[in-house]
Amino acid sequence: MKKETLYGIHPVIEALLAGRRKFFDINIAKGKTFQHFGKIQKLAISRGVTINRVEKRDLDVMADTRQHQGICASVSQYPFVDFSSLSAAIKKNNTSPFLLLLDNIQDTHNLGAIIRTALCAGVNGIIIPKDRSAPPTPAASKGSAGALEHALIARVTNISIAIQALKKHGLWFFGLDMNGDKSVFSADLSGGIALVIGGEDKGIRPLVKKECDLLISIPQEGEITSLNASAAGAVAMYEAYRQRNIKRP
Amino acid sequence: MKKETLYGIHPVIEALLAGRRKFFDINIAKGKTFQHFGKIQKLAISRGVTINRVEKRDLDVMADTRQHQGICASVSQYPFVDFSSLSAAIKKNNTSPFLLLLDNIQDTHNLGAIIRTALCAGVNGIIIPKDRSAPPTPAASKGSAGALEHALIARVTNISIAIQALKKHGLWFFGLDMNGDKSVFSADLSGGIALVIGGEDKGIRPLVKKECDLLISIPQEGEITSLNASAAGAVAMYEAYRQRNIKRP
Repeated sequence: MKKETLYGIHPVIEALLAGRRKFFDINIAKGKTFQHFGKIQKLAISRGVTINRVEKRDLDVMADTRQHQGICASVSQYPFVDFSSLSAAIKKNNTSPFLLLLDNIQDTHNLGAIIRTALCAGVNGIIIPKDRSAPPTPAASKGSAGALEHALIARVTNISIAIQALKKHGLWFFGLDMNGDKSVFSADLSGGIALVIGGEDKGIRPLVKKECDLLISIPQEGEITSLNASAAGAVAMYEAYRQRNIKRP
Repeated sequence: MKKETLYGIHPVIEALLAGRRKFFDINIAKGKTFQHFGKIQKLAISRGVTINRVEKRDLDVMADTRQHQGICASVSQYPFVDFSSLSAAIKKNNTSPFLLLLDNIQDTHNLGAIIRTALCAGVNGIIIPKDRSAPPTPAASKGSAGALEHALIARVTNISIAIQALKKHGLWFFGLDMNGDKSVFSADLSGGIALVIGGEDKGIRPLVKKECDLLISIPQEGEITSLNASAAGAVAMYEAYRQRNIKRP
């Protein structure tokens, strides 16, 4: 079984809580105490995971960064979900699903930030392409404050085929694009939808754009018209949240 | 005159366009070409600024980072606006102003990201405390993709006094707080308002919170309920934008 090293307090706690990864061991810096230590210890005991006390410099090596906050865990690889099972779950589900399709996001920090917001905004599942996307690494888990550990992420080889399959289940695809046909605030995001967010520099790839039912944009004022991918994603996901959950006064 | 070194393509271009900083010189790595070079050259000539070609390693030293993208500029310090002139402009202005008050934002990258979104969302002015806030450094300008160069930022010693002064001009203060009394989506953000965003860890300080007319929260689902400051800020600023600009269908 391939292993990787999760680091940081939130990724380790959330992975323990989510219960989807196998834990080989947890390593904490000697003498290190922190607010959540008791919680981690309790979770580790209940799952039969050993906690080792190690030198801080050993953690620097394990995590391959100093951003570990005194804690690393050796775990199994990121638990992707099957696209077919995600698709089947959507087909079976009576309510309107809210999916996210991340095309071409290259920056690990952005990937983490978007996934963190997605979980808060009630996104049910996330699809990323096998190529041309930052993978959900431990750095992404750190960047997501551990949200990655709970997210349902399917990785697909061909985005266009995945979109066509989901369209058959009645999902509408909305691509976030600076030159979109309609403002995000005037599009109807209340049904079964997938929001497509493109990469930092070039946005959604043309072939994926073509598959979208509608391109939507975020209106922008001022001298700089360049919301970054994670801010634009937050605005669009929460506009969807608002339309789906908040009754008009 | 105190100098600082702006670095990165967007900060240098936007500072030239904004015309608020004095430029001493611009330094570009030997042999470096980039998309916006012609634009920078034209702006530099029109302002009588010398462009030097230097070794890349010299830029590493000037910028004190490698994130300079081959360009640095020696400029005057960040051009804050006076609180009194910001306040007078608001008093004179007939339309409803939209201000941002950043209390306790410690992270330079977050400061830059929030200011970038603020400009896009049509925020008219930003207030930060003299202490307890990341200052608008060249790193913040880089993090804001140069938006900082256009933003109107006033720095105040006493936030409470500043709030009381602005309230006299009819502004309503909305504090963004996880335990807010009302959802951001059900608060009325359409008039003259100031949105108060607190620091990454501890949020708005109690004394500042007390001065807010209403505490508003962003509803959150899922296992992780912790939007980061810049995502939460983006959602709140754009909900204000929506209410202020989009007519109900």
